[in-house]
Amino acid sequence: MKILVLNGPNLNMLGVREPDIYGKENYASLCKTVEDEAKRLGIQVDIRQSNHEGQLVDWIQEAFGVFDGIVINPAAYTHYSIAILDALKAVGLPAVEVHISDIHKREDFRKHSVTAPACIGQISGKGIYGYVLGIRMLYDHING
Amino acid sequence: MKILVLNGPNLNMLGVREPDIYGKENYASLCKTVEDEAKRLGIQVDIRQSNHEGQLVDWIQEAFGVFDGIVINPAAYTHYSIAILDALKAVGLPAVEVHISDIHKREDFRKHSVTAPACIGQISGKGIYGYVLGIRMLYDHING
Amino acid sequence: MKILVLNGPNLNMLGVREPDIYGKENYASLCKTVEDEAKRLGIQVDIRQSNHEGQLVDWIQEAFGVFDGIVINPAAYTHYSIAILDALKAVGLPAVEVHISDIHKREDFRKHSVTAPACIGQISGKGIYGYVLGIRMLYDHING
Amino acid sequence: MKILVLNGPNLNMLGVREPDIYGKENYASLCKTVEDEAKRLGIQVDIRQSNHEGQLVDWIQEAFGVFDGIVINPAAYTHYSIAILDALKAVGLPAVEVHISDIHKREDFRKHSVTAPACIGQISGKGIYGYVLGIRMLYDHING
Amino acid sequence: MKILVLNGPNLNMLGVREPDIYGKENYASLCKTVEDEAKRLGIQVDIRQSNHEGQLVDWIQEAFGVFDGIVINPAAYTHYSIAILDALKAVGLPAVEVHISDIHKREDFRKHSVTAPACIGQISGKGIYGYVLGIRMLYDHING
Amino acid sequence: MKILVLNGPNLNMLGVREPDIYGKENYASLCKTVEDEAKRLGIQVDIRQSNHEGQLVDWIQEAFGVFDGIVINPAAYTHYSIAILDALKAVGLPAVEVHISDIHKREDFRKHSVTAPACIGQISGKGIYGYVLGIRMLYDHING
Amino acid sequence: MKILVLNGPNLNMLGVREPDIYGKENYASLCKTVEDEAKRLGIQVDIRQSNHEGQLVDWIQEAFGVFDGIVINPAAYTHYSIAILDALKAVGLPAVEVHISDIHKREDFRKHSVTAPACIGQISGKGIYGYVLGIRMLYDHING
Amino acid sequence: MKILVLNGPNLNMLGVREPDIYGKENYASLCKTVEDEAKRLGIQVDIRQSNHEGQLVDWIQEAFGVFDGIVINPAAYTHYSIAILDALKAVGLPAVEVHISDIHKREDFRKHSVTAPACIGQISGKGIYGYVLGIRMLYDHING
Amino acid sequence: MKILVLNGPNLNMLGVREPDIYGKENYASLCKTVEDEAKRLGIQVDIRQSNHEGQLVDWIQEAFGVFDGIVINPAAYTHYSIAILDALKAVGLPAVEVHISDIHKREDFRKHSVTAPACIGQISGKGIYGYVLGIRMLYDHING
Amino acid sequence: MKILVLNGPNLNMLGVREPDIYGKENYASLCKTVEDEAKRLGIQVDIRQSNHEGQLVDWIQEAFGVFDGIVINPAAYTHYSIAILDALKAVGLPAVEVHISDIHKREDFRKHSVTAPACIGQISGKGIYGYVLGIRMLYDHING
Amino acid sequence: MKILVLNGPNLNMLGVREPDIYGKENYASLCKTVEDEAKRLGIQVDIRQSNHEGQLVDWIQEAFGVFDGIVINPAAYTHYSIAILDALKAVGLPAVEVHISDIHKREDFRKHSVTAPACIGQISGKGIYGYVLGIRMLYDHING
Amino acid sequence: MKILVLNGPNLNMLGVREPDIYGKENYASLCKTVEDEAKRLGIQVDIRQSNHEGQLVDWIQEAFGVFDGIVINPAAYTHYSIAILDALKAVGLPAVEVHISDIHKREDFRKHSVTAPACIGQISGKGIYGYVLGIRMLYDHING
Repeated sequence: MKILVLNGPNLNMLGVREPDIYGKENYASLCKTVEDEAKRLGIQVDIRQSNHEGQLVDWIQEAFGVFDGIVINPAAYTHYSIAILDALKAVGLPAVEVHISDIHKREDFRKHSVTAPACIGQISGKGIYGYVLGIRMLYDHING
Repeated sequence: MKILVLNGPNLNMLGVREPDIYGKENYASLCKTVEDEAKRLGIQVDIRQSNHEGQLVDWIQEAFGVFDGIVINPAAYTHYSIAILDALKAVGLPAVEVHISDIHKREDFRKHSVTAPACIGQISGKGIYGYVLGIRMLYDHING
Repeated sequence: MKILVLNGPNLNMLGVREPDIYGKENYASLCKTVEDEAKRLGIQVDIRQSNHEGQLVDWIQEAFGVFDGIVINPAAYTHYSIAILDALKAVGLPAVEVHISDIHKREDFRKHSVTAPACIGQISGKGIYGYVLGIRMLYDHING
Repeated sequence: MKILVLNGPNLNMLGVREPDIYGKENYASLCKTVEDEAKRLGIQVDIRQSNHEGQLVDWIQEAFGVFDGIVINPAAYTHYSIAILDALKAVGLPAVEVHISDIHKREDFRKHSVTAPACIGQISGKGIYGYVLGIRMLYDHING
Repeated sequence: MKILVLNGPNLNMLGVREPDIYGKENYASLCKTVEDEAKRLGIQVDIRQSNHEGQLVDWIQEAFGVFDGIVINPAAYTHYSIAILDALKAVGLPAVEVHISDIHKREDFRKHSVTAPACIGQISGKGIYGYVLGIRMLYDHING
Repeated sequence: MKILVLNGPNLNMLGVREPDIYGKENYASLCKTVEDEAKRLGIQVDIRQSNHEGQLVDWIQEAFGVFDGIVINPAAYTHYSIAILDALKAVGLPAVEVHISDIHKREDFRKHSVTAPACIGQISGKGIYGYVLGIRMLYDHING
Repeated sequence: MKILVLNGPNLNMLGVREPDIYGKENYASLCKTVEDEAKRLGIQVDIRQSNHEGQLVDWIQEAFGVFDGIVINPAAYTHYSIAILDALKAVGLPAVEVHISDIHKREDFRKHSVTAPACIGQISGKGIYGYVLGIRMLYDHING
Repeated sequence: MKILVLNGPNLNMLGVREPDIYGKENYASLCKTVEDEAKRLGIQVDIRQSNHEGQLVDWIQEAFGVFDGIVINPAAYTHYSIAILDALKAVGLPAVEVHISDIHKREDFRKHSVTAPACIGQISGKGIYGYVLGIRMLYDHING
Repeated sequence: MKILVLNGPNLNMLGVREPDIYGKENYASLCKTVEDEAKRLGIQVDIRQSNHEGQLVDWIQEAFGVFDGIVINPAAYTHYSIAILDALKAVGLPAVEVHISDIHKREDFRKHSVTAPACIGQISGKGIYGYVLGIRMLYDHING
Repeated sequence: MKILVLNGPNLNMLGVREPDIYGKENYASLCKTVEDEAKRLGIQVDIRQSNHEGQLVDWIQEAFGVFDGIVINPAAYTHYSIAILDALKAVGLPAVEVHISDIHKREDFRKHSVTAPACIGQISGKGIYGYVLGIRMLYDHING
Repeated sequence: MKILVLNGPNLNMLGVREPDIYGKENYASLCKTVEDEAKRLGIQVDIRQSNHEGQLVDWIQEAFGVFDGIVINPAAYTHYSIAILDALKAVGLPAVEVHISDIHKREDFRKHSVTAPACIGQISGKGIYGYVLGIRMLYDHING
Repeated sequence: MKILVLNGPNLNMLGVREPDIYGKENYASLCKTVEDEAKRLGIQVDIRQSNHEGQLVDWIQEAFGVFDGIVINPAAYTHYSIAILDALKAVGLPAVEVHISDIHKREDFRKHSVTAPACIGQISGKGIYGYVLGIRMLYDHING
C-alpha cells in the first residue's frame, strides 16, 4: 500500500509559523511522525509540500495509478481551491483532509472547506497527530 | 475502553428510509457492524438511538466519567442542534461525527454541521462502513 | 382508511394562546371538528398533540404500515425541524401540512416551511377549518 | 358553482415540455382531467391558458362577481409576478395554487412562491392530478 | 403641454381592491381628479391603464416626441420591471413616480423601486392626491 | 408570589462545563443562590432544568394560572427554539431571560435570541448573579 | 405659510465640493434660488445648514407648531440617521426630501434612504432646482 | 449611590411623538417617575436628554468617577452608535439599556442593538415603567 | 436552415435609446446587418421585436418544428424572465443569447442572466455585430 | 491568423475525470478536434494546458503581439481567478470562454464566471465541440 | 507645512479605555508623541479631539485652505460616518487614516472602514506610533 | 536595511495594461522609482514580480531572516490569496501593502483585501509613487 501525503502552503514553516496556533514542532518533526506511523503499519508513504496550488494539482494527478490514497492538508487552499477539489475528484482516490489547528475556532473564512466534498473524512485540531489519524483512516478504508 | 455510539432521528428507519440515499441495510445491520468491529478491537460499545434531541443530550452527559469517547451521527440534528454541540463541549470527551450519506452532495441545509466543531473528525458518505472508520479513529486517538 | 392528525407545540393552548392570531376556539373544538369530518367521510382518525419534536418524529414513524396518510400542523417546528422533514420522507406516507394562521402574513421566520417539501399540499390561514380541507385533500388523494 | 382554472406560461406545451419534469400527458389531457372532475362534482369550470402575465391579471379581474373561486398554476410567474399576487388579493376570491412538478425539489428560484400568500392552499408535485385536488379543495372551501 | 398619466396593473380595481390599503375611491374618481387638475393648469392629459407590462412599455415609447412628461404609477411592476425602467430611460422624458399607498410601510418587497432611478421624483402615501402633486411637479419641471 | 425558574440544556453541567466560559460554581450552587434570594424577598420559587425542548415547553404551559412569572435561561435553545418563544407568548406570563455568559461576546450564532421578544428583559454576562437580578426584576414588575 | 429648509453635512461646501457631482454653484446661490421661489409663492422660508446630526434633529423639533412643512436634504445622514427619521415622524409635519445629485446612480450605500419613509416625496438628481420642486410640492400639499 | 439616566434623541418629544407607539405621557412625567423611584430607593439620579450623539458620549465619559451606574435609552442611536458603545465600554460603569416600546415588534432595523453588548441588561416594551425596572436592576447590581 | 431572431423590449428604440450605451445605429440597421449575414450564409432569418414578455414566449413556442434555432436578445427580460427561460427549454431548440452592451460592466442587476442556462452560448458587448457572431455560432452548431 | 487555445486545471485528465460530467473523450481527442478545425479554417493554433494559474497568466501575457485571439477554458479557475481576468484585460486580445459541461446546471459555485467579463462570448455545455464553436466565433470576430 | 491631526470619539479616554486593546499610554502622551515628531520634521501640527461627528466635519471643512493635509483617527465613526467621508472628499486634502488597535482582528463591524476611500493610506495596529507613521506618510506625500 | 519589494500578477504589463486605470508608466519605470528611493534612503531593495501565487509565497518565506521588511502589491491576489496572508503572518516581517489604482473606486470584489490584516499599512490610488510612500513607511517603522 502506497499513500501520498500532501502539504499545502506555509506548512514548511511549521515551528516558525504562528506557534500559538500551529504548535512548536517543525516540519521535519511532522515528516518523522508520518514516516514512523507508516513503518508501524508496514506501508509506503511519500510526503511532499508545495506553496503552489498548481504543483499540488500536478501531484494529485500523478498519484493516479501509483498511490492507493491521499492524506492532504491543503492549508490556505482548503478555503478556495476548486482546482484541488476537481483534481481529487478527477483521480477518484480515497482522500482524507487533515488540519493541524481547529479550523472551526478561527476566522470565518477558515470554517468552510472547499476541498472536503472530495474526501471521505476530515480531521481538525489535533496537531501533527492528526496526520497519524488520517493515515490510519485511509489504511482502514483501503483495507476495509 | 468504552465507546458510546449515538444515532439521531430516523436512523432506526434504515432500510425503509429513502434507500437510494441511505442504502438498503437496516438498523440491526448497522448495530452488528459496529459490534463486530468493537470485538475485533477488544473494546466495549454501547449503541443507542433516539429521535429526541433532549435524549441525545442526556446520553452525552451520562457518558461523562463512564465512556472514553463518542461516535455520533446526529442525523437531522447535525444541522441545527446547538444543544448537542454544547453537550459535547460540556463533557469534553473525544468525539467523531459520522454521516452515512455524503452531506456535501445534498440540499444546501445539509452541508453545514453545527455539531462538527466539538468533534476531532468527520466521516461522510461511506455508508455504514463510516462507523467502523469512526470507531477506529476514536480508538487510535484514545490510545495515541 | 386511517388518517393520523398530528399537532405540534402549543396547539393544546388554543383559545388561550394569542386569540387574535389563532382564534377563540379551543383544542377540544379542533378535535371535534376533525372527528366530525372523519365521520362524514367514513374514515378513522387519530388525533395527537405534543410539544416534543422527538415525540412527533416517533409518531410519524409509528404511522408506517398503520395509517394511510398524515395531516400535520408542525406549529413552531414547521420552521426548523429537519427531523420531522426526514421522518415524513422516511415513512413515505402522503402528508398535508395545515396552519391555522396565515404564515405568509406574519414574522419573516414563519414564512418558510422546512417540512413542506415532504407534503403534497399546504393549507394556511383558514383557521380550524383548514384541518377539514386537509383531511379531504388526503382522502381524495388516497382514493384518487 | 363556477370555478376558473388559470394556467400560466408554457403549460400549453405539456407533453413536449421537458417530459422528465412535467410528464408525458399533454395540455388537452390536463383539460379533460379537469372537466371530468367538474362533471363529477356538478360544477362549471372555465379553463384558460396564457403566456402573458397581463392576460392572467385581466382574467383574474374578470372573475370578480362571475366565478366562485380560482385554481391557478402561475407556472414561471409563480416566482416573480407581484401583479398576479395583487390581482388575486384585489378580487378576494378563494384561490388554490397548483404545481405539476414538485417546486421544492428544483432550482432555488423555484422554491419561493410570490403568489402563494393570496391562496388558501398550495399543491405541489402530484402532476395533473394536482388540479383534481385543487378543484376539490376549492369546492370544499366554498361549500364549507 | 401634454402629459401622459400611466397606471399599472390592478389600479383599475380601485375601490374594490383592498380598500384598507388603497382607499374607497374608484378608478373613475382617480381619473376625474387628474383631469380637474389638468384643466386648472391649462394642460392636456392622457390617462391610460393596463395590466400588461409590455403595453406600458409600448405607451412609454409612443410618448416619445408626443408628450412632454409622464406621471407613472407602475403598481406591482414598480418592484421588478426593468423593461419599464429601460423604456423610461430610452425616451428620456421627465417622469414622476406616484404610489397611492405608502410603499415604505408595507411588505419588504414593496420598499424597493426598480423604476425610480429613471424618475425625477417619487410621491408615496398620499392617496389619489399624489397624482395632483405628481402632475404639478412635472408641470413645474417642464416650465422651470 | 410564585416564580418559575427554568434552565435549559447543559446547565446541569455547570462547574464541569467549560469553566472558562460558565464559571466554576456548580448547578447546586446556582439553585442555592436562587432560593436564598427568594427567601430574602419572601416569595416562592420552583427551579427546574431539562435538556428537552418539549419539556421546557410543557413546563411553561403548566405555569399558566399557577405561577406569577418566569425566569428562563433557555441556554442553547435561546438561539433556535420558536417553540419556547410561542409557549411564552401563549401563557402570557411576564418573563425575564438570563444568560450566565455574555452572549454578545461569543460565536455569531449566540448573539441572536429567538426567545427574547417574549420577555420584558434580558440579563447577560453577570454569571449566576444574573438570576438574582432576574428574579428581582420580575418581583418588581409583578409588584409594580 | 412658513417652510423650513434644512441642509445636512457638507452642503455648505457647494461649489468647492466635488463639482463634477454636485455642480459649480455655491451655497449662497442655493439659498438665493430658494428665497426667490419663496417670494414668487408668497411664503416665508427659513434656510439652515448644519454638519451636526443632533442640530438637525433639534431644528426639526423646533419646527413643531412654528412651520407648516419641511424641505430637507439630509445629505450623508440620508443613509443612516434613524434619529432624523424619528424626529420627522415625531413632529408629524409634511416633509419633502431633496437630493442634488442622483442618488440612484452613485455608490450602493447612497441608494437607500433611511429618512424617506417619513416624507411624502423625494426629488433626486435635478441639482439646486430640486429645491424649487420640493418647495412647490410642499406648497401644493399644504394648500391641497 | 448616584445614577445617571441618559435619554437619546426625540425622547423629549414624548406625548407628542407617535403616541400609539410611545404612549401619551410626556417627558416631564418620565422624569418624575424616575425621581420618585430614586427617592424611594434613597439614591441620587441625574436625568439628561440630548439629540446629539456626541453629547451623549461626552456625558458618559463625564460619569467616570462621578456616578455608580448608568440607565440609558439611546433611542435611535441604539441601532448604529458604535461611539456610544465604545463610550460605555471605556468608562466601564454598569449600565442598563431601556426601551419604552418593544423593539422586537417594530421595523427590522430596530430589532438589533449596537449598544447592548456594553450593558448588563436590556428592558423593552414596558413603557416609562421600564426606567423603574432599570434603576432597580442597577441598584441591585451595585449593592449585590 | 431557418433561424428566428428575437429582440426584447426597447430594442426597437435603438439609436434613440441611450446612445452612449447602445450605440447610434438604429433598429433598421440592426435588421439589415442580420439579413445580410443570413444571405451570406444562405439561410433564412425571421426577425421580430416585442416589448411583451408573453409575446416573446408565444414566438419561441411557435418556433417549435418551424425554425432550426433561435438568436435571442431578451434585453431587460434577460434578468428576470423565468417564463422565457422555460419557453426556451420547452421547445428545446438551440439558442444563442446576444447583448449589444457589455452586461458585465453595468449595474449589478444586469450582470446575471436568468435566460442563459437555456442557451449554448452568450455574446456580450460587441454591439450589433454580436448578432452576426450569434447567427454564425448557431449556423455552425446546427451544421456541426 | 494565430489563435492560442488555453486549458486550465484537470482538463488533461479528460476521459478519466468524472466521465458522467465531462464525457469519455480524452485530452488528445480534444486537441485533435481543435487542430482539425484550425486546418479547416486555414489558421494556426497553439494548444496548451496547465494546472498552474500563474502559468496560464504567463501564457496570456506572452500572447500579446503574437496571437490574434484566445480560446480559453479556465476550468476551476473560472470561478475565482481574478489574476486570469486581469491578464485577459491587460493584453486586450479578443477571447472566448469555453466550458465542456454546462456550468449553469452544476453546483452554485460553478454558475458564476469571474473571467467572463474579459471575453466576448461564452459557450457552455456542448462538450469538446464547444471548442470548435469558440474558434469559429473568434475567427469570425477577427475577420469581421 | 501644516498638518491637522483629528481624533474621534473616546480617544480622549486613552489609558483608561480598555487598556488591553488600546494600550496604557494616555491622550496627553499621544499628543506629545505627535508634537515631538512634528518638531523633528520641522512642521506645524494642530491636534484636536471630539466625540461629535459634526464637530469633526466642521474641523475638516475649516482645514480647507489652511492645512496641507490631515491625519485622522475617526475611531467609532470609521465604521459609519458617511458625513466624514464626504467632508474629506469635499476639501480634497491628502489624508491618512490611523487606528491604534488592529481593526482587522476585532469585531466584524470594525473591519470595514467607511472613511478609507477618501484617504491615501491606512495604518492599523501599531499603537500610538501609528500617528508618527501617518504624519511621515503625509509629509512625504506633500513633499513628493 | 534590506527591503523586499514584491509585485503580483500582471504588474509586469504596466504601461500596456489598461492605462486609464494603471497609468502609462511601464514596469521598468516602477523599478527605477523604487531603486532611486532606496538609494536616497541608503537601503537595499530587491524587486521581484511573479504571476504565480506560489512563487510569491516562496519569496515571502525566503525573506525570513534575510530582509527587514516587505513592500507588497499582491495585485489580483489581494482579493483571494489566503496563502499570501498566511505567508506574511508566518514570517512575521513588517509589511506594507501598495495598490497603484484606488481599489475603493473599482469593482466590488476589488474593495476587500484578504492580505491587509497581515500588514501595518495600506496605500492606495497614488500610482507608482505609492511604492515610495510604502518604502518610507517601512523604513520609518523599522527605524522607529
